[in-house]
Order: sequence, then C-alpha cells, then structure tokens
Amino acid sequence: MADEMNEACGIFGCIGADDWPTNMDIPHIIYLGLMGLQHRGQESAGIVTTKGGPKTNFLSHKGQGLVANVFTERSLVNIKGNLGIGHTRYSTMGGMDHHNTQPFVVHTAHGQLAVAHNGELVNAAPLRRMLLKTIGLSTGSDSEILTQLLSQPLPDPEPEDAPDWPARLKKLMALTSVSYSLILMHNDTIYAARDPFGNRPLCLGRVSTSMLRSPSRDNPIDAYMVSSESCAFVSIGARLVREVEPGEIVKITKQGFESVCIVPRPDNKPPALCIFEYVYFAKADSYIEGQQVEEVRKECGRQLAREALVEADLVSCVPESSIPAARGFSEKSGVPFADVLCKNRYVGRTFIEPTTYLRQLAVAKKFGPLTECFKGKRIILIDDSIVRGTTIRSIITMLKDNGAKEVHVRVASPPLYHPCYMGINIPTSEELVANTFNSTQLANEIGADSLVYLSLDGLKSAVRKNIKSNGRAIGHCTACLTGEYPVELQW
Amino acid sequence: MADEMNEACGIFGCIGADDWPTNMDIPHIIYLGLMGLQHRGQESAGIVTTKGGPKTNFLSHKGQGLVANVFTERSLVNIKGNLGIGHTRYSTMGGMDHHNTQPFVVHTAHGQLAVAHNGELVNAAPLRRMLLKTIGLSTGSDSEILTQLLSQPLPDPEPEDAPDWPARLKKLMALTSVSYSLILMHNDTIYAARDPFGNRPLCLGRVSTSMLRSPSRDNPIDAYMVSSESCAFVSIGARLVREVEPGEIVKITKQGFESVCIVPRPDNKPPALCIFEYVYFAKADSYIEGQQVEEVRKECGRQLAREALVEADLVSCVPESSIPAARGFSEKSGVPFADVLCKNRYVGRTFIEPTTYLRQLAVAKKFGPLTECFKGKRIILIDDSIVRGTTIRSIITMLKDNGAKEVHVRVASPPLYHPCYMGINIPTSEELVANTFNSTQLANEIGADSLVYLSLDGLKSAVRKNIKSNGRAIGHCTACLTGEYPVELQW
Amino acid sequence: MADEMNEACGIFGCIGADDWPTNMDIPHIIYLGLMGLQHRGQESAGIVTTKGGPKTNFLSHKGQGLVANVFTERSLVNIKGNLGIGHTRYSTMGGMDHHNTQPFVVHTAHGQLAVAHNGELVNAAPLRRMLLKTIGLSTGSDSEILTQLLSQPLPDPEPEDAPDWPARLKKLMALTSVSYSLILMHNDTIYAARDPFGNRPLCLGRVSTSMLRSPSRDNPIDAYMVSSESCAFVSIGARLVREVEPGEIVKITKQGFESVCIVPRPDNKPPALCIFEYVYFAKADSYIEGQQVEEVRKECGRQLAREALVEADLVSCVPESSIPAARGFSEKSGVPFADVLCKNRYVGRTFIEPTTYLRQLAVAKKFGPLTECFKGKRIILIDDSIVRGTTIRSIITMLKDNGAKEVHVRVASPPLYHPCYMGINIPTSEELVANTFNSTQLANEIGADSLVYLSLDGLKSAVRKNIKSNGRAIGHCTACLTGEYPVELQW
Amino acid sequence: MADEMNEACGIFGCIGADDWPTNMDIPHIIYLGLMGLQHRGQESAGIVTTKGGPKTNFLSHKGQGLVANVFTERSLVNIKGNLGIGHTRYSTMGGMDHHNTQPFVVHTAHGQLAVAHNGELVNAAPLRRMLLKTIGLSTGSDSEILTQLLSQPLPDPEPEDAPDWPARLKKLMALTSVSYSLILMHNDTIYAARDPFGNRPLCLGRVSTSMLRSPSRDNPIDAYMVSSESCAFVSIGARLVREVEPGEIVKITKQGFESVCIVPRPDNKPPALCIFEYVYFAKADSYIEGQQVEEVRKECGRQLAREALVEADLVSCVPESSIPAARGFSEKSGVPFADVLCKNRYVGRTFIEPTTYLRQLAVAKKFGPLTECFKGKRIILIDDSIVRGTTIRSIITMLKDNGAKEVHVRVASPPLYHPCYMGINIPTSEELVANTFNSTQLANEIGADSLVYLSLDGLKSAVRKNIKSNGRAIGHCTACLTGEYPVELQW
Repeated sequence: MADEMNEACGIFGCIGADDWPTNMDIPHIIYLGLMGLQHRGQESAGIVTTKGGPKTNFLSHKGQGLVANVFTERSLVNIKGNLGIGHTRYSTMGGMDHHNTQPFVVHTAHGQLAVAHNGELVNAAPLRRMLLKTIGLSTGSDSEILTQLLSQPLPDPEPEDAPDWPARLKKLMALTSVSYSLILMHNDTIYAARDPFGNRPLCLGRVSTSMLRSPSRDNPIDAYMVSSESCAFVSIGARLVREVEPGEIVKITKQGFESVCIVPRPDNKPPALCIFEYVYFAKADSYIEGQQVEEVRKECGRQLAREALVEADLVSCVPESSIPAARGFSEKSGVPFADVLCKNRYVGRTFIEPTTYLRQLAVAKKFGPLTECFKGKRIILIDDSIVRGTTIRSIITMLKDNGAKEVHVRVASPPLYHPCYMGINIPTSEELVANTFNSTQLANEIGADSLVYLSLDGLKSAVRKNIKSNGRAIGHCTACLTGEYPVELQW
Repeated sequence: MADEMNEACGIFGCIGADDWPTNMDIPHIIYLGLMGLQHRGQESAGIVTTKGGPKTNFLSHKGQGLVANVFTERSLVNIKGNLGIGHTRYSTMGGMDHHNTQPFVVHTAHGQLAVAHNGELVNAAPLRRMLLKTIGLSTGSDSEILTQLLSQPLPDPEPEDAPDWPARLKKLMALTSVSYSLILMHNDTIYAARDPFGNRPLCLGRVSTSMLRSPSRDNPIDAYMVSSESCAFVSIGARLVREVEPGEIVKITKQGFESVCIVPRPDNKPPALCIFEYVYFAKADSYIEGQQVEEVRKECGRQLAREALVEADLVSCVPESSIPAARGFSEKSGVPFADVLCKNRYVGRTFIEPTTYLRQLAVAKKFGPLTECFKGKRIILIDDSIVRGTTIRSIITMLKDNGAKEVHVRVASPPLYHPCYMGINIPTSEELVANTFNSTQLANEIGADSLVYLSLDGLKSAVRKNIKSNGRAIGHCTACLTGEYPVELQW
Repeated sequence: MADEMNEACGIFGCIGADDWPTNMDIPHIIYLGLMGLQHRGQESAGIVTTKGGPKTNFLSHKGQGLVANVFTERSLVNIKGNLGIGHTRYSTMGGMDHHNTQPFVVHTAHGQLAVAHNGELVNAAPLRRMLLKTIGLSTGSDSEILTQLLSQPLPDPEPEDAPDWPARLKKLMALTSVSYSLILMHNDTIYAARDPFGNRPLCLGRVSTSMLRSPSRDNPIDAYMVSSESCAFVSIGARLVREVEPGEIVKITKQGFESVCIVPRPDNKPPALCIFEYVYFAKADSYIEGQQVEEVRKECGRQLAREALVEADLVSCVPESSIPAARGFSEKSGVPFADVLCKNRYVGRTFIEPTTYLRQLAVAKKFGPLTECFKGKRIILIDDSIVRGTTIRSIITMLKDNGAKEVHVRVASPPLYHPCYMGINIPTSEELVANTFNSTQLANEIGADSLVYLSLDGLKSAVRKNIKSNGRAIGHCTACLTGEYPVELQW
Repeated sequence: MADEMNEACGIFGCIGADDWPTNMDIPHIIYLGLMGLQHRGQESAGIVTTKGGPKTNFLSHKGQGLVANVFTERSLVNIKGNLGIGHTRYSTMGGMDHHNTQPFVVHTAHGQLAVAHNGELVNAAPLRRMLLKTIGLSTGSDSEILTQLLSQPLPDPEPEDAPDWPARLKKLMALTSVSYSLILMHNDTIYAARDPFGNRPLCLGRVSTSMLRSPSRDNPIDAYMVSSESCAFVSIGARLVREVEPGEIVKITKQGFESVCIVPRPDNKPPALCIFEYVYFAKADSYIEGQQVEEVRKECGRQLAREALVEADLVSCVPESSIPAARGFSEKSGVPFADVLCKNRYVGRTFIEPTTYLRQLAVAKKFGPLTECFKGKRIILIDDSIVRGTTIRSIITMLKDNGAKEVHVRVASPPLYHPCYMGINIPTSEELVANTFNSTQLANEIGADSLVYLSLDGLKSAVRKNIKSNGRAIGHCTACLTGEYPVELQW
C-alpha cells in the first residue's frame, strides 16, 4: 500500500529547432510531458518558457492542483516560447506555500535563470545557514538553495553574458552530493544534471516532426527533451534516447545533446538509485537502468512466490500498483489470478474525509467487493509494500465479511523501518507499522491468516537480474529498509 | 470502447429513524451513495433534504462537476435533514443548463415536492405539448415534465395535506411507460418507482447503526435507502435488500419499505431492462436481476471465446471496463492473460484537448505500452464494445509500433446500429462505425489482423444464464443492436 | 438614512432596427442601461436576448452581484441579439435563490416568453394558491406568478403563433392592480406595462445612430428602449421620450412605440406613485412626473427650512443621498453649507462586519471627520429620512467627539411608521425607530440637540409643486408614513 | 482629474500589549487600517503577523483586489497574532505579479523579517546591479531590494538573535535617500522609517481599550500603530499621536514608541514631501505637516479664485476629489456653489470598457447631468488637476449638450509636465496633455470657454500657509511640475 508514501517531483524540459511547427508548441509538449509525470506529484505544477536569447523575459504559469487543472489552452498560448522547463510536485520540504511551486525563477546579473529539480538535499540545513549569512531567503525550500548556489558567480571570472554553467554545476555537486535530478534554463540552453549517486532518475528523449505525422514537410526537424521518466516521452510521441548517468551534466540546445562531464562519487562509493522507484514510484511502462519497471515488479512477484508460497485458490491484489507483482506471483506459483475488488474510478487520492464516523468507510468508497469471485475461497493477497497497515486491514475485513475463507498477505518488498531524507515523504518511524509489529503480529493485527514480506536479498536480486552493467557500478539506495544512507545526514 | 457512450443518471434516497445518530448524517449518506454512483454521471450533482413534516422547507445543494467537488463538509451540514434524495447526471435532454440539475423541486398546493429520475421519456414531446396548453415550463427537461405531471391534482378529491401519491404515480405510468426509475420526496415520505418495462435499474438497501460500528447503543436502529445500483450501498456500509420490480411503486418511511403495487406492462409485453447495463454501464460489483455484473461480463468473454477463438500468445484488453470479458475469454480459451497497457491514473474522461496536432496523442496520454510484455507476440485484444472505433485504432497502432506481431480484436457485444431514446447518449447513426463498415472492413480500417463481434444470441445467453426467473417474465432492451424499441417512439 | 431600506428592482429593455450597427450591440446597451439602474438593486442581474422570430431560442446570462461583475465582454457577445430585456434586483420576496434572478423565462405553447418586473404583488398569496391548484411552482417569487398568469391562454381563441398579449396583460391587471412595472419579450416584440396605480416608475427612450456619433452612415437608424428610470438613458447616450402612464400598455417593436391602451384604476381611485422614489430611491438626475428628482429633493430641503429653522453656523448632511435637501435648506435659510464628513469611497453597502467589538466602528470605516470645518461650531445636520436611527447616532457621536458644539438634526421626510408591501424592503414596525420614540425622545436617544421631521403636507407640497397635471389625476403612495395603502392587502 | 494618476501604496502596522483583548484582534485592526488607506492602492493587499518571539513563524494572507475582498473573517482568524504589518498597493514597479504583493517576507539568519513600504527608489537600478553580483533576485520589485539590503549583516558583529536594526536602517538610508516610508517587523518589534527627504507621509497612532468602549476592565491598555495617513486611525477608533519626521527611525514595541534617531539629508537639502499628497492623493480628513488636507485644498480653491476669477452664475466641480477646491473658490469669489453632476455610486475606477463604440460613453456611465441646476447658466468648473484631459472634455460636452451657457475650467494645480520616479504612476511625457497644449489651446481642445491653472507659487503658498515649522526646514517635491527632482536620478 505504498500510496501512503509520496514521491516528491517530476521534471520535464524541452527545446525545439527555430522552425519547430507552431501547431505543436513547446509549452504544449511540456504540458503533456508533465501530465505523463503526474504520478510523481499532484499538488502543484508550473512551466517556465522563453523565446531564447540573453535579454528575453521568461514567461511562466504555475498553479495548485493537477496539471490538467492548472493549465488551460489560453495559459499555454500565453507562455509561447522555443524552450522551457516544467515541474509537478508533491510537497516535501517547504510546505504548501504558493512560493514553493517550481520551476524557481530568479533574476541574476546575467538575466533570468529557471531551475526545477526532483529530490531533497541531505545537507540542506548547513547550506541554508551558509546562505543566510549574506542574504535573506524567500522560502523554506531546497529549490531556492539550489538556485541561489547556482546564481553566485564563481571566484574565477566568467564571460559577461554566459556564466560557466558546467563549472557552477560542478561546484554545486561538490557542495551537496545527494539527492537531486535537476534541469536549469538560461538564455538558449537547458542543462540537465543528476547527483553523483543517481538517487533520482533522469533521461533524455527526442521527437521528430516526422514521428508526429505533422503536415508533410521536406526536412523533418527535431525537438530535444529531458524527463524524470521515459513514460513521459510516450505521452508526446517521442522516443527515449538514453538515461542521464549519475553525476553527469548534459547541455541541451536546439542542436541536440552534449555530455559535458561526469562528476565522480566521493570515496568511490557505489551509486544509490532509490530502490522504491522500482517498487512503487516509477510508472510501470518507464525504463530505468535499461529495464521496463513492469518487468521488475513481475519478477518481485515471482521471487515472492519462490520465498513464500502458501496453498490457496486464487492470487489477487489491491488495484492498481500491486497488479504486476500479483501477476508474477501467479505465473510462478501456478495459482490462478482473479480480481476480488472493483475500483471506483472517481475517488481520487486527495479526497477530504467527512469528519464523521463514516470515515471508517474510506475503503468502501474506493473499492467494491467482487463477491462472486472469491466467496468461500482462499486468497493470496499481494501488496507492493506496507506502510501504516490501515488500508490493508479494511480490505481484509471487507473480503472476509463477504465470504473469503482465508486471506494470506504477501508483500512484494521488505518491511519499512526508516524515514527517507532524499525526496520521499514517508511517515515517521512511529507510524511505520513495521517498527511496532513483526510479520506474525501484523498478520494478527490486520486479520490476515498469514503475512510474509519479500526478503531484502530477494528484492535486490529481482531488481538487478536484468541490468546490463556495461562496466558501470551498480547500486541502490535501501535506506528506508536498512538505515544505510548513501552519505552522512547533516543537520 | 463503450466509454464513448454516456449514461444518463444515478439516483439515491435515504431516510433515517428519528434518533438516527447525528455523526452519520443523512446528507453524508446520500453524498457517499452518489459517489458510489458517480460512474453513471459526472456532469452535475444535487441533494435535497428535509427535516420532514408538512410545513418544513426543503434544503438543497447542487452544482456542476463530480460529487466530491460539488459538496463540501459545510454544504452537507447546511442541508442537515432526516430524509433526502440525490442525483448525479450526465446530460442527455435539456442541455448543460444549471436549471436542469436534479433533484427537481417545486412548490405545490401541498408543500414542496422533490423528484429525481434516471431515464428518458420516449413520448416526452407530446407530453410537453399537452402541458404547454395550460402552463409555461422553465426548462426543456424530462424532469420538469414528470414533476408537473405529479404536481397536478387527481380528478377525484385527495386529502388536504397528503396527495394520493400512489394514484398519481399510477396515472403517470399510464401516461408514459418507458423509461424512468424515479424517486419522489414529500413531507416524511420517499416513493420509489420503476417504469413498467424496468428499463433502468433500481434497488432498495438498509443500514443499521450496528453495521456502522457506531459507539455502542442498546437498540440498533435502521436507515432505509433506494439507489440506482447496489454498489452504492457498499460505499456506506449498507446491504442490498432487494431490487424494485418493473412497474413497482414502493413507499419508504422511517419504518421501512412498503410495496404499494406493481403496474403491469401494456399488452403483456416482456420487460426491457437495458442490456448495456450489463455490457458497460453498471459497476462490476453491482447486482442486477440477482447476478453480479462482473460475472455476466466474464461469461460474455467465455461465450466470445466459444464463438471466435484465434491462435495467439496472449489475451489482453483496454483497461478498465473490458477486463472481466478478457479474463473470461482467457479462462475459457486457455490463452494466458497479460497486461499490455499501463494507464495514466490522472487523465480523466473529461479532459479538453488542446486544439493542435497533439490531439492525435490523446491515447498516448492515457496509456503507456508495457512493451516487454508483448514484443514479438500475437495479441487477442478484447473490447467491451465498439462505438466510433477511433480509440481502438490508436491503441492498435501503439501496440504494433512497439513490436506486437498480430492484434486480433474480439468485441464482447454485437455491433451498435441504432440510437437510444431511453437515457443513453449514443452518437448518431452516422457516427456509429458499424453502420459504415462490416467487421472485415473495420479490422482493415483500424489495423487489426481480424475482428469478430459477439453474436446477439451469445450476448443474450450470457446475460440470462444465471437469472432465476421465479415465475417472472425475463426480457432485455436490445434496441441499439436491433432497432426493436419496447414501445413505439412518439415525436 | 434611507439606505437602510432597499429598492426592489430596475428593469430595462431595448430593441434595434435590423441594420443596427454591431459595434454597439443591443446586449451592450442593456448592460449599460442596467448599470445606470444599479442603485435600484445590487444583488443580482440578468439579461435575456433573442435574434427575434417565432422559433428562435432566447439567450440568457444571469449572476449574483453588481452588473459590472455579472457580465463580461464574452458573456455579452454570447447573447448577441436584436432585442432583449434585463433586470437588476435587490431581493424582497423569494430570497437569495439563484432561481429568482430575473428576467424569468418560460417555454410556452407559442415559444419562449421572458418577463422582468419591478414591484411586489399585494395579493401574491391568493394568486399563488390559485395557481397551485393546477401546477407546481419552481420558486417563491412574484415573477413566476406573473409569468405563469401571462403564459395561460385566454378563454377566447388566440392566433397560433401570436398570443393576444394586450388581452393577456389586461386580464393580468384585472387580477392584480398593484404593484408592478413590467416588461415582456416574445418573438420580435417587447411589451411594457405599468400597474394602474403607477406605483413604480417606467419610461421610454430612444437613441439614434447619429447621437452615438458612430462612423458616418447616410441614414441614421433608431433603437427603442424602456427603463425604470430616465437616468439609464443618459448612460447610453439616449434620450427620454416620455413616461409610461399608470395602467398603460405599450408595444415596442423595431418600428417604435405604440400605446395599446390605458387600463383604468378600480373605483376611480387616484394614482399612487411611491413618494419615496422622490425621497430616496430614484437617482437624482432622473425625471419623474416631468420633474428632475434633484430639484424635488432641494425643494424638500427648502420646505424643511421653512418649517424647522434653528440658529446655527453651518448646514451639512451625511453623504451622499441627503446632499440636495441640505443644499435646499442652506439656500432657503441662508446658513452656509459645509462638508463635515469625508467618505471612504471603497467601503460599499454590502460589507460584512467582523464579529467583534470593532463592529461599533462601522461608521468610522465609512466616514472620516473633517474636523477643521466644524470644530466649535453649531451644525444643522440634514438626513433624508430616519429608519432605525443607528447610523445617525454614530455620526453625531463622531461629530461631537471631534468638537462640534451643537448638532441639530432635520429630517427631509416624515417619520416612517408602516411596512411597505409594494416592493420596498423596510424593516419591521418594531425596528422602525419612529414607533418607539417621538422626535424629542429620539433627539435625546441619538445625542442630538434637537430633531425635527418634515411634515407630511410639507413633503406632498414639495413633491407636487412643479408637476404639470395636464388634466391627469395626481396622487402618491404614502402608505409607509400613513398606513393608507392604495388597495386592501390580501393574504 | 488626478484620478488618472495612481498612488503607489499604503502601509499600516500595529502592536498590542500582551493582554490585548481578543475580541478586537490585531489582524482586524490592521485590516480596518488598510481599509482606511484603500485610496492609496486598490490592486492587492497583504497582512503579515506574528505572535512575537525569536522562533515564531510569521503568518500571512495576501491577495489581489480590494482589502474587503482579499480578507474574510476566517483569513483574519487564521493569522491571529500580537503584532503585524500590512500593505495595500497599486503597482508601479514590478508589474501585477503575485510575488510582488507586500509585505515582503524573508528568512534571515535571525529568523523571519517582514518589510512593507510606500515609495520608489530613484537609484533602484544600480542597487539592483550591486545585489545581483552575489545573489539571484526573485522579483523586479524595490521591496526585494530593500529587504535584501536589510537582510545583509553589518560588517561589525551583531548580537546573535537581534540584528542592530537601527544601524542597518541607517546603512540603508546612506545607500538610497529617496523615496520610501517603510515598516519592518522582526521578533517582537516594528520599526518605522521615513526617507531623509520625507517624500511619503508616515505617522504614529494609539488606541486604548477605554476608547474602544470594550467591556469594562480596570486597567485600560494600549495598542500602538503606524500608518501612511492619519485617516486610517479614525477607522479603528484610534488617535494620531504625531507624524514620523523625515529621516526618522522609530522603534515600536508593546511598551510604545521610541525615536531612535533622525538621519540628516545629504548636503543639507530641504525636505521634499510630495506636493500631490495635498493636491490629490491623501484623504481629505488626514493631517499632514499638522494641517488637515481638506483645509489645504479649500485654500487652493481660494487662491485660484484670487488668481483667475471670471464672471459666472455658479461654481461646480467633478465629484468627488475637487469638491474642497470648488468650495474654497465659491467662498472666496462669492459665486454660489451648485452640483451639476450626479455620480453613479456603483461604477468603480477599475471597470473594463467594452471594446465598442460605447466606449465613448464612459463618462455618461459615471455621471448624470443635473440639468435643471445649470440649464442656461455660466459654470466655473473646478478640477484638481489635468493629466490627459480626456475626461474633462467629455464632461464639458455633456454639460453643454444639456444647456450650459458657458463652461470655464479652473484647475487647482499647475500643469503637469514631468514623470514621477518616486512612487506615482504618472502617464508618459507624451501623454501629459500640458506638453502638447498651452492653456488656451487646451480650453479650445476640450470645448471650454476658458481654462486657467493655479500658479506654482500659488500652490506652494496655499500648501504652506498654515504649516507651523517649529524650527524645522519646510520643503515639497514639485518634480512633476518643475522637473527638479530632490536627488539626481540614477539608471
């Protein structure tokens, strides 16, 4: 039930050639890209664009809510430009304040600068104290820290109208090594950079006017883009080119991509891509480390079947994020898959509960029992993860009230013990049910006939089974499971 | 792809005993009930309540949009009452005008009257002309026609403060025999009635304070309710009591249900429940004619496998309404089920397309390809129905672009040839693709390797297989498939 | 302080020739006309238009709030038409419900009918009971009563597509003789009618394209209009043609005005124009009964000086409605006029008070003392009327706190003792301070050194001084002052 | 017609003793204070409060529009605190962006800092360039410049939790000497400061619980406040204590006011209070330099009568800002004052014109002619100033069209030739009609029979006539009339 955790952000940037056709404007592309990243943040969204050039004002539109609600046809037309970056977020640091909606834009000595990022700085507090020695900060957000650090001139002189962005980004990476995937827009250029640990995903894409089947033109031209996940490229008819490497800085212009450099990790440590991107956060059709997320989730289900099979009549799951793991479990175990719940399509995540006893009906509002499918049967119920354990309890009650004979919970990830300080809004340690009950106690507590978690080794092996390393180090952040953070936390 | 058709309405009413606990207010129950009927109409919603009694003013809150957006905690508190009726709608007749949002309330000589209904009168035009001879009508809606007909006194004298509602309802049924399921609120009573053909579903439910696990009280008390579908009872912890019979009038008070009478069909015709309630409209966990809709849909899939199997590597479908049919097909045929598309949870039905070439990306915005699941494979793609054929075409293109070897479309209902005049917003005959292409031509047109529809007899047998008649006539409206309407249409 | 009473409504209609220039659309003219009538009602506004012709749908836009807020450029363009009627209202009967916003539109057997009116029916209750014998009513408003009465066919046969409107209006006037000024739109025609007592004003105007100085055209053409007050014609560059007579029915087409008939008053009673239109409601630049309202108010001030002069250093008043009376008083008495209060332009009538002790500062928020003008001086403070007496008390306190030596209140109308049932929202008898205190007691109560009201005869003589009767009867409704209503009230 | 110019801002701060009664909350007081300053800016408003103390978060509510629309009872309750500052503005620099709504709040090394100011920095551009050398700026506003300058630590060490605000303010005054009146809130203290030239007004006020007539308490306690103008104190039952001197820094705590120091002007120049505060901007009941503004305006009228009398039947003016000057003119000349126009109370400044020929009716929408007062008469029409000359032209046309025999315009201030860079949004030089036409040409252009401006010396003498210098230098900024700015402008 990983939907009790919240991903921080999705970022998307795009730049088109000069004669990019106006009937598929850059702002529309970014808008569709953000819609493809909506699962990474539903609280607010923003797009900043520019026609390009040193003196041109940035245009911007931001708002609270889903991408589809924040933008209208008119607001996209109002920010017409040749390049732009966008952002969709769930608040972690900085609260719900309107000022925190990214992209963050500042005026610098070299004109306007826009920055959008996904992630959270593990040393935000000392960086903040350092900045406050000389300036006032408008917000409590990491974005402003990143933007102010990037706004400061280097000790070595820089050209008048073109700061040395690669050098500034390298300086930034030296000051803070985790966690951020960021995009920066200035004049005619977008820079994309991923922290040296590669904690959050970032990838490059390309669309050609020929792919878009636009009215025939002799010379197809390209637009170049950068996105948190490759699924966003599908939304706009574009193709994944490649992923940005951990520590890599990529310059994006209307001529294409240019890899500037790869900043190494301190002490030669392994990379630390968040393993929960596979378990829950990323969209199933995205590719990360060369593999489609759906396949990894199926493999987690297969591994779970290897580790914790139990005799039963059917395998099922809570819609929708646990479906692939349940399919993998069924495939490996031979126990048939069946739907046991029917989702109400119109009940969103963000619904505000009435302050009444009807609150206990939250699950009943979201799911109806497909009683005839499971009456009198033994169910293996797959869940991708267990955070607080409240939802799964209500579901088991509903299944048993409607005639399920047995309900065996199998969890496609290990127990969650630790908070994340790298961009995910996980409940406090006290709220994480794994800190209160072991699996037997938890089964009892939620009314299950048994409950088994996937082992940490099982998760790692499922995740890494199909990664082709090509000589690169492989490594994943499992801090929320093990307490081992990629770098020391600083307060 | 039946989501190109639109259901007209969902209705819900509830009445509680005098000491019904205030922490699970009647308006909250109706609100949750309407949320459970949201799939029947997303355009507007309204609730009208009363404390009961002959002189008490009705309270009302209505608005445009989803139930969750129309109502707030405050608006529910403002309409506190002991009984009430609610409505959620997709406009068919009457347009998007605010005046058309139901329930429809009028002042009568006996105090206020509220009416909500699901369905469309096949003889609305002559009834309208009849009314206009003596009064002006505020709207173009069937609701006002029904309400004015019910407001008129009977020729025989009625008691001062209590019109003879059963007699008025019987008079109404004599004037118009299809299509409506309606609920009426006056003083302390709700009446529920279904047209003699039973074209739209309607059922009765009950909740007890004991079921709601409210703070202990010695004598559990009940609330009684009426709903378009039984799935809405689940949303509020209530239980289905029984369905309202075609032509039946039920009086609902705080003491419970009382069947007043059953008005017979003209000429002893069979009933005519809309067969598309099974194919698409009803929620899968609802019970209609004693059977759970999910099971009927699976049986349609099984029947389709019997009629139109083809050699393939996997069975899949477009999420979400075709899933049960695909499961039934897979189960019967032995061809394994696999997901081929990953849905974007945040793209709703109602999104307004940008007026650009990006419009062609509508499908890409909604679904991402789970490429690794189907690359190089032969797919049987199940769809619940085909209306215009535009969406399925885009999906086949996406699948083939991403490596599908063959795509065989199997449709779990017969071709749609005729418009509906009984509450469903079906495109015009010209827009229904079955009127332009036969199945071979259509397969070619949408890029499928083959396309077969379920036979009409196949559909009927799947629908009726598990109905227990108990001596009652069984019959379904198949007008959109056959052109045979239950009664003559009048203009 | 008559702003504690509320006027019911303003109505405006306009019809243009076929080639009326599109750059000064009829909806724009009505919009500006309503803005010119805004002082008669600030709660909601609506405009209904039609291109004309028997089958053409009416277009309508309505909303809560000031005219300037209800309409936008776009909403006016959306209701483009060749004729239309509009309404601005303060609620009297029927409450704040959205359904009550006029013009009221119904579908009749002869197509759509729109009605807007100013006034309140003294026999609304029995008329309502009569209607409810056969139909349900959607609202509690007099507008619906008027509209349904007009929708009913006459016993004598009428032509197919053109009801006999003069006959229907005469029938209406026979059923209810006071109080309404109304306009009715059907097909290509607007009818204007004033109740036989002429209780509310109504007048006819005309604008020519030549007056509007539109781009040169050879043949200037005219638009014809009807308005509650002549001041609205000024807002659109039009001219007052004449007033509609009490009981008169005028047909307005694109060819101009045609007086259909004048319905006589029952029992040969005198007319009963509301005398408070002169005292407070009408705008000062409007002409009623041939005289400009400003002049009548000045004459009331002069008469007051004749009746109740006192030794003082200056005459002043509460801005803004009492200014003319104060000027007249100063002119007649020779005591110089001076401003003593400075109004805050941005504090509207409708401000919602904070629920705190700061409520007592309501007057201080609206007016600042021009201390240097009155310190140490004796003030004659003119008020147009006294309703509750609360505001005048706070003002006297402010003046004395800031150094006024004496404050003598002179009221330019007699004491208010009775409620109005003809369109004005006057507080209940208990709230009318004149029913509690005589003038000496009231002076004491509000801290004034003396207080004198204008006599009833003085008011009547001031009002009638310059009316040219031309053989017509002259008469005014003084029911709120005397309790003598023009007809018997019916409940 | 000075309403074609726009004032920049109004500021208001308040601090209450610990046991300040909760039923007249500090946020409510600030809200009412801002409402009393509404004439200084109608575009947006904001209030920032704190409970006080070094670690307490600031609370803030801001929005677009009038104070009465920006704040609700709830929003004021949400920002409950013991001290706070507020702002209402018309945009000059920085555009309509939401980020520019003051008060400006930043996080500093010593906790949050809030700043609100009225005025515009004449050397904003070089200060901005200086700041951009080290940081990025979020907005284009002077507020951010002031706030960042105040956020920077002094070279000399300051105490840990209490920056040396007087020293920082003095440093600020050394960097920029005109134009700003500002208030700053930090921890438990508000600082008020006025630029050394005193270009914008600022004054101190006090209210006691005894003045507020709150429920009896033994020991009345005080709240202390600072405001752009004294009129705002009246709105809340408070009293003016004194004005802040040019260059003065005042510390305000719950114990009261403490004058910290007075920073001298460079080169011993005279002060430069904006003379248009007297002519137009300030509210008539405010006191500036010890005199009530109404009296100064009357004196301008008297002086104008001395300089430019002409034979006529009556003196009048355009409501409302020119009334005092017209009264003074009438008083001095003996020509009687009379109203000639009746204002439509409901047409605000901000109305958006329809894009039609009806635009020419803008004046007719605002004013109706009181024809009977001026028909056949010679009018002296007083205007406070002439900016573009478009409105006065329409008014003269209306007067003459309705029978005025002659219209002589007398302007109570000299011609406007130059832009203001100190906080007033004056049209460009090209738009200032005085740069195109001399007074004779202008009279001809607008249809007046004659037109005379008040002389510069006349204005100065009227303004200074009653100022008691008490040994202080007296001086006023007349830059818009003479082009002599108090300091050199820097770009």
